[in-house]
Amino acid sequence: MNELPPHVQRARRPEHKELRLAAIMNAALSLALEKGVRAVTLTDIAARTGINKSAVLRYVETREDIYLRLTAECWARWAADLREALEERTDGTADELATALCRTLVDQPLLCDLLAHAALHLERHVSADAVLAYKLAALAALDDMAKTAARFQPVLDEAATRELISTVSLIAGALWQISTPPEALARLYAEEPRLAHAIVDFVPRLTSTARTVAAGLAARTG
Amino acid sequence: MNELPPHVQRARRPEHKELRLAAIMNAALSLALEKGVRAVTLTDIAARTGINKSAVLRYVETREDIYLRLTAECWARWAADLREALEERTDGTADELATALCRTLVDQPLLCDLLAHAALHLERHVSADAVLAYKLAALAALDDMAKTAARFQPVLDEAATRELISTVSLIAGALWQISTPPEALARLYAEEPRLAHAIVDFVPRLTSTARTVAAGLAARTG
Repeated sequence: MNELPPHVQRARRPEHKELRLAAIMNAALSLALEKGVRAVTLTDIAARTGINKSAVLRYVETREDIYLRLTAECWARWAADLREALEERTDGTADELATALCRTLVDQPLLCDLLAHAALHLERHVSADAVLAYKLAALAALDDMAKTAARFQPVLDEAATRELISTVSLIAGALWQISTPPEALARLYAEEPRLAHAIVDFVPRLTSTARTVAAGLAARTG
Repeated sequence: MNELPPHVQRARRPEHKELRLAAIMNAALSLALEKGVRAVTLTDIAARTGINKSAVLRYVETREDIYLRLTAECWARWAADLREALEERTDGTADELATALCRTLVDQPLLCDLLAHAALHLERHVSADAVLAYKLAALAALDDMAKTAARFQPVLDEAATRELISTVSLIAGALWQISTPPEALARLYAEEPRLAHAIVDFVPRLTSTARTVAAGLAARTG
């Protein structure tokens, strides 16, 4: 319970408080999937949870705190999904690893959306304790994934797989924002043939770039 | 003059109006270099220019319009700098190309900062005409760079160099935001040994990743 803020620790019935926190997180999650992280306000989250805004702020610091916690959860799920996807194999290739990394990431559109927001916004609007908890959770997931990925194939060592994973996460974060433009911009892309080059198809582009990075790491290692 | 908004076209002395627009752009540029794009408000820009906010809005649509124009200018400068850096050589390597791309990009900290903001914010707070003008300028710079880069070395063709450049720009945009944390976060990094892994040194990390991508493109081409 040490990680919880003091006002939650003082609660008389911690199990109720945890249920309410879970309800807030679920509301934030479903709203973000519906309209994108950027568009969700604390007021939306409170309304969806069925409590008022000041009640929400007894459980979390800010709107950004909610989404930073969700980002940490998504990283942990990415690590678990990768472990499952790679099974117990040890004879994989760097290319298969890159493809599996992308497939498991793309399965979580919320994480794809959160990646860019985490560095640009979320980390900047929470307490030092909240950032620390988030960073440690994300780093633990990255460590876990790097170990899983190094075991899966004999070409890239743990340092190289760590580099692959973090590069894929950076590229995915940036590509997601570009490939999910707001309505006005999407209309412009559709109507303006000179912008055909600027349209990004998220999954194939991410996968192709990840495979390129894996091939480059293999070439620089070998 | 067709690209200028109508209120500027109606101006009686266009040369004076252009001087004022240039003053606004310069103010926005120097403020962004001093405290980062995210922290600069339209009020700051007006104050630095020495005119009031409503006067600024006779020349540009929004704060984001100013920075989107600056992003377009920075892309054009990146293309020109790359052309100069690669000279007239045709016997370069993909690795030298990656290094030159990073060196010329890193020379423009404003562009490094603007890259992530352009997709996440700037494009979303201007008119369709402003986005179109920006996109066409950025695409023209990218085309120019891809041609220059393909001529410089015999390994990567124009499509592959285009992919290298756009991937470098995506990674640079994401890495810049991570490697220039706000003061509170920087203090946390310095004080917390468990976060040592999370610290990103922009130039070496960008250069290393760009070289990896170039090696991967060469491996997948060959």
